[in-house]
Amino acid sequence: MLPFARVSIIGLGLIGSSIARAVRAQMPGVVLTGHDVNAGVRETVRDMNLLDDVTDTPGAAVIDAELVILCVPVGIMGEVAASLANDLPPEAIVTDVGSSKASVAAALTQALPNHIIIPAHPVAGTERSGPEAGFAGLFHNRWCILTPPEGCNPAKVAQLQAFWERLGANVEIMAAEHHDLVLAITSHLPHLIAYTIVGTASDLEEVTRSEVIKYSAGGFRDFTRIAASDPTMWRDVFLSNKDAVLEMLQRFSEDLTALQRAIRWGDGDALFDLFSRTRTVRRSIIEQGQDDDRPDFGRADH
Amino acid sequence: MLPFARVSIIGLGLIGSSIARAVRAQMPGVVLTGHDVNAGVRETVRDMNLLDDVTDTPGAAVIDAELVILCVPVGIMGEVAASLANDLPPEAIVTDVGSSKASVAAALTQALPNHIIIPAHPVAGTERSGPEAGFAGLFHNRWCILTPPEGCNPAKVAQLQAFWERLGANVEIMAAEHHDLVLAITSHLPHLIAYTIVGTASDLEEVTRSEVIKYSAGGFRDFTRIAASDPTMWRDVFLSNKDAVLEMLQRFSEDLTALQRAIRWGDGDALFDLFSRTRTVRRSIIEQGQDDDRPDFGRADH
Repeated sequence: MLPFARVSIIGLGLIGSSIARAVRAQMPGVVLTGHDVNAGVRETVRDMNLLDDVTDTPGAAVIDAELVILCVPVGIMGEVAASLANDLPPEAIVTDVGSSKASVAAALTQALPNHIIIPAHPVAGTERSGPEAGFAGLFHNRWCILTPPEGCNPAKVAQLQAFWERLGANVEIMAAEHHDLVLAITSHLPHLIAYTIVGTASDLEEVTRSEVIKYSAGGFRDFTRIAASDPTMWRDVFLSNKDAVLEMLQRFSEDLTALQRAIRWGDGDALFDLFSRTRTVRRSIIEQGQDDDRPDFGRADH
Repeated sequence: MLPFARVSIIGLGLIGSSIARAVRAQMPGVVLTGHDVNAGVRETVRDMNLLDDVTDTPGAAVIDAELVILCVPVGIMGEVAASLANDLPPEAIVTDVGSSKASVAAALTQALPNHIIIPAHPVAGTERSGPEAGFAGLFHNRWCILTPPEGCNPAKVAQLQAFWERLGANVEIMAAEHHDLVLAITSHLPHLIAYTIVGTASDLEEVTRSEVIKYSAGGFRDFTRIAASDPTMWRDVFLSNKDAVLEMLQRFSEDLTALQRAIRWGDGDALFDLFSRTRTVRRSIIEQGQDDDRPDFGRADH
């Protein structure tokens, strides 16, 4: 039995188009409608035949929807939700896939005060953007975090949880504020640091850009993959999860300064202790199936 | 025709054992001898039959060598080289695989003042350690940087270059000081940052270790791979390339502080500009074959 018979996806980029593909693959009976503000994207998705109907207006895509999934940058969640208000069925569940949750929950509640809103965040993605970059397996064995507001109907939460589990995700439920702290350290700060070091490397006088690229296999190249992620999406994430990101950034800077001091004063023991401690974290990630255990992700030529 | 008929490898971990495997695969005629200070490693390598002779003393491994490759942490290069002085043939070429070059060159020259020393750095590796982790293809299509001292015999340099090219590497020649600057930004700083953020994440009170691990797919997990690299090797790298690392770290910290300020004051344009700029660096790395162009390195389940 399908959690929802009629699903609407607003925003058809990497995540939105991957949800469409996964629904087609895992829940063939579902009627899929959707909209993207970009006419070129709408054309591409029509050509790929990923949905039953790609509408030219956002409202037309949600008229009969039981579930509406907003897959747009977190900075415009509120205005996109407001554009649906007149056409949205009163009993429809509205959810999203944004990487920050407290500010998104506030924006959606303000835009749709009388609707059931259950913010969500599938912790999955790649450095690619656009509908061509999506694939049905993106959410397989990845976590999807639901942050239902206080007093939200548990049956509706269970329905959304069942939907994500059908797409292959493992669902976790937590408070929006806690989600924002957890993702600030596991996702937002890593992206900020990767963007920063790739920028720093690009601006050097003593080392040419082509040298940086040639010798990137030494470690730098992993940062460039993360720093190739969608600029609009990430600008919005940092602005919308500002407090948690600044908190984690402050802790990181203190720790980095301590290491800087250890290097300057030749304190090898302090370096060795940290470097040994961090190894165990990697082991746990492999054990819990959150990464590929081949060396270098199997990227190296064996 | 073989660049060298008799090659000796001192230190049989990831890099040393990979060189042995690659020599076996690409230059079957070569007589391979070697030594490791760890008796257990010597046993393992004997069982794997990677060399013609694994000796119990370093000196015995180099008696008839034409090329001696030191594959030990950069902090002990000098003392290991000194331990070979009495048994090393006068015409043997001594090289290494260390990640910093100016300090290693000085240590080797001091230990072996009358020998031909050509420091080298194959820019290749994985987060794994030990002889079981090695593989013959590790250097394939990777760069190997040679830093011959002033006035070094060009014929000898050409001979070492030919050796590395036979192992599949692309060889570049530069001054040791320039190498140290280039690697400080492309390898040493990325490792320092990865070690730091993994440490920061492990020490949080508001976010549990298991939450960090569960949601690492958001970006954090790539840092944990780098932060799982050999602690002794990396402690030595930071201490031996101190000046260049501190210089790059200072620039990084300034850039990170600028981004921190942009987030605090909501300057979305500054964030968007940097995030767009860094995307192009990734493209160049893919175009030059220095990384896998599948999204998420093909790690995601397509």
